[in-house]
Amino acid sequence: MLKRDYEGQVCSIARALEIVGERWTLLIVRDALLGVRRFDGFQRSLGIARNVLSDRLGRLVEAGVLVRVPTTERADRFEYRLTEQGRGLAVALTALREWGDRYLADEPPLLLRRRSDGHPVVTAFVPAGAAEVLTLAEVEAVPGPGRRPRA
Amino acid sequence: MLKRDYEGQVCSIARALEIVGERWTLLIVRDALLGVRRFDGFQRSLGIARNVLSDRLGRLVEAGVLVRVPTTERADRFEYRLTEQGRGLAVALTALREWGDRYLADEPPLLLRRRSDGHPVVTAFVPAGAAEVLTLAEVEAVPGPGRRPRA
Repeated sequence: MLKRDYEGQVCSIARALEIVGERWTLLIVRDALLGVRRFDGFQRSLGIARNVLSDRLGRLVEAGVLVRVPTTERADRFEYRLTEQGRGLAVALTALREWGDRYLADEPPLLLRRRSDGHPVVTAFVPAGAAEVLTLAEVEAVPGPGRRPRA
Repeated sequence: MLKRDYEGQVCSIARALEIVGERWTLLIVRDALLGVRRFDGFQRSLGIARNVLSDRLGRLVEAGVLVRVPTTERADRFEYRLTEQGRGLAVALTALREWGDRYLADEPPLLLRRRSDGHPVVTAFVPAGAAEVLTLAEVEAVPGPGRRPRA
């Protein structure tokens, strides 16, 4: 008999949701993947209460998804950067975005493409070791048609 | 200035989280992908209150992720099956599972492999149209080392 909380679930999805399943948390990681680093940047993008944002950022640091470091220009200011563990959420977030694009959006607000030649990039099941796999560094995000003002 | 709820976010991830971001919802979809169909099956697997489960199943039906159909043996009994939209969450859930396996689990409780030859399957970024992409039907889940009793 399993327990009533996620911790009772012998499942890595349940364990992952313990960390990133909280409201707003995945959107913070999304913003970080898109280059947001400062508290005010997250706050502007998400429009949530500062105490909620502060709590979520703190939990993500504690979980090893983000790291809090002094900014280069001022040592008393801090920014949040994704760790390798945090960047590891990119495929999951992108797959969720693709699902939303396909079933919930009129037109995709954001597109992923291969940095070298602009070829569209998607997430998929592949055999382990597949030659066509792209690293996150080989992929870039650009505004899609859903982000442009409509005619 | 963006609104304070996910609806104010011009982003397909935010829209997707409106549907699958609720506590337990992604675990229901996970169970459905693994073959669970009956209310009691979900209840046994998740161990949550029946009213919460009933609410979440109803929302997933309303959102078009699950469909509620009479069972073949008894027309007054119902089961829940994933729609094509629901099966579309498989890559996102698997990527989340892989992340959990990598950073949060000792050993993976579940493994994905290619049905034809048992080759391990992963999720990844690939160029659109990549030849190595596998469909969900070509993939199967098997218990991993984390599911077996430890020696």
